[in-house]
This record gives sequence, structure tokens and C-alpha cells, in this order.
Amino acid sequence: MIYYLGMMGMAVFAITGVIAAGRKEMDIFSIILFGVVTAMGGGTLRDIILDSNPIFWIGDLNYLWVSVGASIAAFGLVKYFNKVYNLLLFADALGIALFTILAAEKTMHLGFSPTVAVLMGVTTGAAGGVLRDILTGRMPLILGREFYATPMLIGAVAFTLLEANFAHHGINRICGMAIIFILRAAAVQWGLYYPEWLRYRRNADDGEE
Amino acid sequence: MIYYLGMMGMAVFAITGVIAAGRKEMDIFSIILFGVVTAMGGGTLRDIILDSNPIFWIGDLNYLWVSVGASIAAFGLVKYFNKVYNLLLFADALGIALFTILAAEKTMHLGFSPTVAVLMGVTTGAAGGVLRDILTGRMPLILGREFYATPMLIGAVAFTLLEANFAHHGINRICGMAIIFILRAAAVQWGLYYPEWLRYRRNADDGEE
Amino acid sequence: MIYYLGMMGMAVFAITGVIAAGRKEMDIFSIILFGVVTAMGGGTLRDIILDSNPIFWIGDLNYLWVSVGASIAAFGLVKYFNKVYNLLLFADALGIALFTILAAEKTMHLGFSPTVAVLMGVTTGAAGGVLRDILTGRMPLILGREFYATPMLIGAVAFTLLEANFAHHGINRICGMAIIFILRAAAVQWGLYYPEWLRYRRNADDGEE
Repeated sequence: MIYYLGMMGMAVFAITGVIAAGRKEMDIFSIILFGVVTAMGGGTLRDIILDSNPIFWIGDLNYLWVSVGASIAAFGLVKYFNKVYNLLLFADALGIALFTILAAEKTMHLGFSPTVAVLMGVTTGAAGGVLRDILTGRMPLILGREFYATPMLIGAVAFTLLEANFAHHGINRICGMAIIFILRAAAVQWGLYYPEWLRYRRNADDGEE
Repeated sequence: MIYYLGMMGMAVFAITGVIAAGRKEMDIFSIILFGVVTAMGGGTLRDIILDSNPIFWIGDLNYLWVSVGASIAAFGLVKYFNKVYNLLLFADALGIALFTILAAEKTMHLGFSPTVAVLMGVTTGAAGGVLRDILTGRMPLILGREFYATPMLIGAVAFTLLEANFAHHGINRICGMAIIFILRAAAVQWGLYYPEWLRYRRNADDGEE
Repeated sequence: MIYYLGMMGMAVFAITGVIAAGRKEMDIFSIILFGVVTAMGGGTLRDIILDSNPIFWIGDLNYLWVSVGASIAAFGLVKYFNKVYNLLLFADALGIALFTILAAEKTMHLGFSPTVAVLMGVTTGAAGGVLRDILTGRMPLILGREFYATPMLIGAVAFTLLEANFAHHGINRICGMAIIFILRAAAVQWGLYYPEWLRYRRNADDGEE
């Protein structure tokens, strides 16, 4: 099951890469490359930091083919959708839910502490999307006003707590993913954000050029 | 020969870094640092992903000195050129031709499959230039309308196919590099791009802020 | 002592991350994440390139907690400061002074040559800040007109020369850090930059779109 959830995360993130690429006029191969980088970027960073060899997609090329296939399918279908930006936001929410929990799980299986697992979960969940947004010159979603990093943190912490106390890995996993997806989707839908005193914005008149 | 081709790739990419840096008013040492990062960035990422130790420029500091030397020379000479943006495009084309094939070759020599070799070739060829363009706030060339990733893919696939069938590594290498450089240079010169149905651009009116 | 200097560098760089994040309206958890990434980014890159396992913050989670604590404190306090951009510049100067020398020292302790140590010092010192600036859509400080990379280079070279000749590691370290901080702070204060002939700016009319 964990294997297919990983493949699903690949596909979903590849689709967000294709949608994001639509801002520029890009050709099909650049778009596929873009989808693949978005899908595999976070996990590559995770495996590099944890020194887990080989990198997951080198060890199993199916990840690559799923990303390529999802990118091609998204390229063919995306023209027929309206409200494609909303689709991007919800697909991204699903992707970060899957990636955060799977990365936290992999980190714990490699023998690292729960704290490292939470941090790697958040990092992996965020990295692919940040890369996608920087490359397309879009403001990274994680810098937006709505909840983005917070659901990942809550979900990852919940998952590691469940793992420490319950042996039902499948249920723990689903709970963690559901927390992240529901919180993030709710934030997108209703524009949830922190109260004023937990936010910060500098005034513009402080001498920066 | 492979060694000197690598050095040539370093020099050429360092020069593109110096040219790109000219957008900002930078001092000589920042420009050298910039040329070095552009030249060595792609190969560093390749060696990190493949867990090839030590990183190539740590194992042989000549790569560093060639990058530094080319950056200094470019700093001194670039003022005397007109049409410096065209020079950037053609130098970049030569650089990606060299780096893509050399990275594919190194990946195969490390025992990875041809598919991984193609992917690492494209990644290495693209990474240095993407880093250069993001740092200088330029739109990455790879996101442009003209062929960019496609020549790298075709050249890398051709090279791995040749390697599987012919023992003349030198000839295989030159063929792969020539394919990439000629296709990319032609794309720059004549603005080649894919037909409409293989491109995608989202309409602006889809609800993104 | 080296341990506490490292912690101090973490805290200072985390604070610059929080200040930089103030450009966007961000919530407290995103700001903490941002401070942590800024603080730990450079050292993570250093350990990945040198293949030093485990990454420093995985081996000792105190680095993480110091970054988190400094980020929270900065979040609470930064509203009460004026001239916050100047604060960013000076905190950044202190951070690069600490990180450059500590990275050069760690690189030498791992058995690499002084040249590699200088390069890794400059890379580590610069990387966290560049990441911070790219993520917040700010022009990287390193691309500014004032001295930025130059003090890091001079300090790192001075430190490696001192290490080769004197056994007083503590004094060597302080000298290297002082050189970087003083040169950079002076550059910020008085806008020092290179004479015209050591700078380069391309004219705008060279055919780039």
C-alpha cells in the first residue's frame, strides 16, 4: 500500500508541475521534465540529506515512469479544465499530505528520531512545490497567507505520536495524511489563516531599497 | 580527451555565468564566484545524487582553477563584445552539449542503467544554467519557447544507444555532443519551437491572483 | 567554544530569516520554518558536498532547537525595531563571519586541502543567505554592489594561512571571523565597493529581450 501511495503522490505532484508550467508557453518535453522535477525533487532532497542510497527513483524507475505518464496525461487534459489554479491548489494539498507522511515514515524506518522524522516530513512535503514555484517565477505557496506549513507539521507530529503508540501503520498513515489534506484544503477553501498577533508583516518604510 | 572536454565545458559555462552576471553591477570577485558556481553546479548535483565521492572538483582542483581562469578572462574581455546575449546563448549551447554527454557517460561508468544515464545527463546539463538564471533573476533558458531540453534528451538517448552498440567511445561522444549543440544552436538561430498542439499555455483568466 | 560559536551563528542567521520573511505576510510557523531553513541551509549543503555523515543537525538536535528558539524570539521582538533592514544586514554580516570560518575549519578537520576549505567556507557562508533571499523574492545580498563575497574570501584565506602556521586555533578563528565581520560591516556602513575597472555592467542595448 505504501508503494502505491508513493506512486500516487508522484502522479499528483507531477500534475501540479504541469499546471504551474502553463504560465509560460512551454513545449511538451519541457513540461514533462518540469513535472518530473516537481514530483521527484522533494524525495531526492530527503534521500540526499539522510544519505539513503540509492536515491529512491534510481532504485526503482517506476517512480520516473509514473511521473512521466502523469505529466503527459496532464498535458493532454489540462486544456479542458477551467479553474485550473484551484485544481493546482487541491492537487498540491493531496501531494503534500502523501509526501509528508511517507517521508516521515521512511525517516523513522531508517532509524532516525521522531523529531528528525517530523522535520524531514515537512521538508520533503514542501521542497518539490517550492522548487516548482521558484522555477516558474511564482510566489511559493508556502509563503502564502493561508495555512500551508502548519498542516504538514500537525500531520507529521500526529503521525509520529501514533506510530509510537499504535502498531497499525496503515491506519496511522491514513490519519496523518487526512489531517494534512483536510486542514490544507479547508485553508484553501475558506482562506483560513492565523490571527493577527501570530502573523508578521514589516512596514515598507524601513529603509530597504 | 574526456578530461579536456570536461575542462572546456567548465570554461564555457563559467563564461556564461560571467555574461549573465553583467545584468547586475557586480565586482570581480563576485563575478568569479558566480562563474565558478555556474560551471561546477551541475556536476556537483550529479555527484551528490549518484553518491559519487569525492565530488569531482574536490578530487581534482584543476576544474576549479579552469573555472576561475575562464571567469577572469571573460571579465576582462566581455566589455569588448557586442551582442553579448547571443554569445551567452551559443556558449550555453556548447556547455550543455559537453555536460550532458559527459554526465551520461560518467553515470554509465558508475554502473547505472542507460535510463538513469539519460536523466542524469539532462539534469546535469540543465542544472548549472538554471542556477545561474535563478540567481541573476533571469527567466531560466530552459523555460523559453525554443528547443532547450529536447536537444539534450535526443543527444543523450542517441549517445546511450551508440554506447550500447559501438565500442568507439570517442566517436559516440562527439556524435552525442554534436546532436545537442547543432539542434540547440539551430533553435537559437531560427527560433525553432514545437507546433502549437505540442505546446501549452494556460489562459490568464482562470482565477489565479 | 567552537560549539557555542556555531550555535550563535544558527541563532543570528535564523533571525535574518525571520526579518526577511517580514516582506510577505507570514504566519508564525512558516516564519519559524523559514528561520530554520536559513540557519541550517548552508551547513547542510556543506555536509552534503563533503559527504560528512550525519548532517550536523541530525547528529545534534540542539542546532534545531536554537534555530527554533531564535526564530520565535525574533518573531516576538522584531515588531519593536525600526531600521530592521539595517539589523538584517549586520546580523547577516555576523552570521557569514561565523559560518565561513567554522565551515573552513570543519573542512580542514575532515582532511581536505586548504583550497577546498576556503571554497567550502565561502559556499557555506553564502548559501543560507542566498536561499533566504531567493525564497523571499529579494535580490541576493551577494549580488549587491557592496563587498560581500570578498570579505568571506579574505577571511577564509587568512584563517587557513594562520592555521598552517599557528597552533592557537581559538585565536586564528577569532581573527578570521573579525576580518569578515569588520570588512562586511564597513562595506554596509560606508557602501564600500570596488573601483570602476574591477566591476562590470553590461549595457542594456545588447539584444536581450
